[in-house]
Amino acid sequence: MKFLYPDDSPALHMDAYELTMMQTYWQQGIGNRRAVFETFFRKMPFENGYAVFAGLDHIIRYINQLHFTDSDIEYLRSTGQFNDEFLDYLAHFEFHGNIRSMAEGELVFNHEPIVQVEGTLLETQLVETAILNVINYQIMVATKAARIKSIVGDQTVMEFGTRRAQEFDAALWGTRAAYIGGFDATSNVRAGKLFGIPISGTHAHALVQTYRNDYEAFKAYAQTHHDCVFLVDTYDTLKSGVPSAIRVAREMGDQINFVGVRIDSGDMAYLSKKVREMLDDAGFPDAKIIASNDLDEKTISNLKMQGAKIDTWGVGTKLITAFDQPTLGAVYKMVSVENDAGEMVDTIKLSNNVAKMSTPGKHQVWRITDRQDGKSEGDYVTLSDEDPRQLDSLFMFDPNYTFLNKTVVDFEARPLLQDIFIDGQQVYTEPSLEEIRAAKQRHLDKLWDEYKRDLNPEVYPVDLSQKCYDNKMKMIQQIHEKVRKLH
Amino acid sequence: MKFLYPDDSPALHMDAYELTMMQTYWQQGIGNRRAVFETFFRKMPFENGYAVFAGLDHIIRYINQLHFTDSDIEYLRSTGQFNDEFLDYLAHFEFHGNIRSMAEGELVFNHEPIVQVEGTLLETQLVETAILNVINYQIMVATKAARIKSIVGDQTVMEFGTRRAQEFDAALWGTRAAYIGGFDATSNVRAGKLFGIPISGTHAHALVQTYRNDYEAFKAYAQTHHDCVFLVDTYDTLKSGVPSAIRVAREMGDQINFVGVRIDSGDMAYLSKKVREMLDDAGFPDAKIIASNDLDEKTISNLKMQGAKIDTWGVGTKLITAFDQPTLGAVYKMVSVENDAGEMVDTIKLSNNVAKMSTPGKHQVWRITDRQDGKSEGDYVTLSDEDPRQLDSLFMFDPNYTFLNKTVVDFEARPLLQDIFIDGQQVYTEPSLEEIRAAKQRHLDKLWDEYKRDLNPEVYPVDLSQKCYDNKMKMIQQIHEKVRKLH
Repeated sequence: MKFLYPDDSPALHMDAYELTMMQTYWQQGIGNRRAVFETFFRKMPFENGYAVFAGLDHIIRYINQLHFTDSDIEYLRSTGQFNDEFLDYLAHFEFHGNIRSMAEGELVFNHEPIVQVEGTLLETQLVETAILNVINYQIMVATKAARIKSIVGDQTVMEFGTRRAQEFDAALWGTRAAYIGGFDATSNVRAGKLFGIPISGTHAHALVQTYRNDYEAFKAYAQTHHDCVFLVDTYDTLKSGVPSAIRVAREMGDQINFVGVRIDSGDMAYLSKKVREMLDDAGFPDAKIIASNDLDEKTISNLKMQGAKIDTWGVGTKLITAFDQPTLGAVYKMVSVENDAGEMVDTIKLSNNVAKMSTPGKHQVWRITDRQDGKSEGDYVTLSDEDPRQLDSLFMFDPNYTFLNKTVVDFEARPLLQDIFIDGQQVYTEPSLEEIRAAKQRHLDKLWDEYKRDLNPEVYPVDLSQKCYDNKMKMIQQIHEKVRKLH
Repeated sequence: MKFLYPDDSPALHMDAYELTMMQTYWQQGIGNRRAVFETFFRKMPFENGYAVFAGLDHIIRYINQLHFTDSDIEYLRSTGQFNDEFLDYLAHFEFHGNIRSMAEGELVFNHEPIVQVEGTLLETQLVETAILNVINYQIMVATKAARIKSIVGDQTVMEFGTRRAQEFDAALWGTRAAYIGGFDATSNVRAGKLFGIPISGTHAHALVQTYRNDYEAFKAYAQTHHDCVFLVDTYDTLKSGVPSAIRVAREMGDQINFVGVRIDSGDMAYLSKKVREMLDDAGFPDAKIIASNDLDEKTISNLKMQGAKIDTWGVGTKLITAFDQPTLGAVYKMVSVENDAGEMVDTIKLSNNVAKMSTPGKHQVWRITDRQDGKSEGDYVTLSDEDPRQLDSLFMFDPNYTFLNKTVVDFEARPLLQDIFIDGQQVYTEPSLEEIRAAKQRHLDKLWDEYKRDLNPEVYPVDLSQKCYDNKMKMIQQIHEKVRKLH
């Protein structure tokens, strides 16, 4: 089947309601009023103590190439839902807004803005779906990768999930997010080409099946590659796979770099210990044992507790699909909008679910660090015109349980939302992937261990400034009164 | 950050080991030997009684455009892992193999081949990752959609998941798979353009926030759109949202088509009943109630049991991420390969896990239907040179518990694997999406209800022919003996 139109473009990667709303704004003549939207999430992914931000690179690419093609407009016209003037506006659409965002590799937390979009009602509405789609996935993978890396420690861990990813893009962007989160390499060749992530891969069971024999397959591989990892579980790991690997390693000697063996099935704890003995006894104490088979932080942690002799880990399905929680659930909420008088006024989303309430106003997020020990005291969300760096002491309180509070002195406040686009022009220079990885590690080092436990971590404080809190309470009261008056 | 190379191509969408294996075959001079690989999965998705096949369209597109660009080759050269002659082969690579596959919309089951690739060792290895990546996702969504549709029945159900999908491609291909599985529309505009899936969408909370008032927002929307669905839960569903919707519907009269209201939070059972009463009392008995809020087949089923007055369902996260099982885990195994003497010989993957054993030989799958009642008796996997249509009666037995068996007479046998590519040329004409949807429904109608229960369904029989079974047992024995002799 052919696509119904000759070309494809990411401009239509959005929910239909963005366009129907835009048409209302446009026809009502308020499309160019200013609005501010903020993206945040409500629950920490995997109940982890922190999340790792990733996705900005894809958002930047999306914004920079955002325009509607002729066939996009032709298609929209064919639906009969849009009028010609509005379609003409879309045909000439350019994004002229401001975007502020966390940097990739930054640690982020629930209930704080992580991406902020400011511009006309039209353009801020248009970009909602794509921004959410990107970060709802990439933050999950970067965070899952960081969880796994925290268990793996100094050992090498590789992303092997392409075949189990949710279509092509997830494999590509997922492995980039995994690299940001702390993974060391990927099997995905396209990610190697586009992002410079080290690629890794040796052979599958099929190679052994082709030669019908472990020994001959390994020998053939060794004759055609310098670095050799042999997959030893096609027929029988201990009786056939490992002895064949050792035989080939001996025969080839210095002609190859015998990196080690890979096990992809069976009991990893038992097998790895047996294989370790066999390799050591054969005079290959430096040969590594690489394991892959539905691994994640929990199985790796258990295998380590049982003393499994595994040196390098390959993680696929559980990472690339964020298996135990496949999406973050971040939302994009209007926090401020221009009124009839041309003033910016804050706005809130209430609804029957308390958890679905938003925090009104345009914000900045500050990471508060104690100058004495260099550790993070919490994040402090202010209205955008506040600057806690001018204060000598900071009163920080939990916005739900306000009696939980502390006063911080001798602190550093680092603003986390950075300018990415101003008036539609990219002003942000992206760091290299290596710099992003290094930044993530620096940020993690500033976090107390209590927040980094992979099970039941302490809750990291995300507090509102007094002004921000008062503003929110006032608006909730106002709307409750308004609704009360209706009946 | 820029991509490191100026162009991107799907050719490198693969695990690195496909290329390292190919280099071994190529250098050892056996790259042009013939091989057959088959794709199958081991566990039914969501423990459902059937799965719905989807993904072939993307596979066909991938195969038809499969070639390496100059920068692909340049990148591979830069890794230092591949030699020039092999890279030169890749630079001129064209797929000349055969692909047989289930049709989209076909019901498929575990332990039967669903895609079969036959060609040279080189080309069959090359396409593994992409094929698995596509079907591992699309089958999940099509199956989840069918499960949800089976609960929703004749009501309308819409795919709303783009913002929660795992990156761009998943949103696009996922909503196509959902449509195949029985969904009626999508919010994804790009899928509307490319595939002709009906798009649906009205407005978000942001519209109400812009006007700071339900009534004014709905009025503005009604003045700019004919078909109107009002989202009523921004401030207070029963006190503000619904009364405002009714007021606007009355004021606008025949100028609009008041389709109904949408609820996105709160207790759906309680709210929908109250909203139904309000709409009925106001003289709008035909106005529909549309619900969306983390729905799936379980929550929908529960809401229906509680008598919720919901007419139309919007399903996002749980469908588009296949939330309760985000990947199928299908594998691609070599079943036959040419030996030194130029003969095709069957091959098997054993390993320590029984579940990871493959069934040797090139296969066909037949759906056996009783001519009397028109219902499916089970699937029958044969070697490719067998044709059960020539038999008067068919002895069908469980390949694990062989004492579970039956003899079927007066049956029809429909071959399920169809020729898609022959010698690299596409010979298959894809049906339209509408035809695929209709086919899926026809196939479902032939399945006994016992297999269609959404909880604890009966296990549909997937049996091996005697010849196929004997072949597998013989090979397991042979390899066990071979391994025994090693020690």
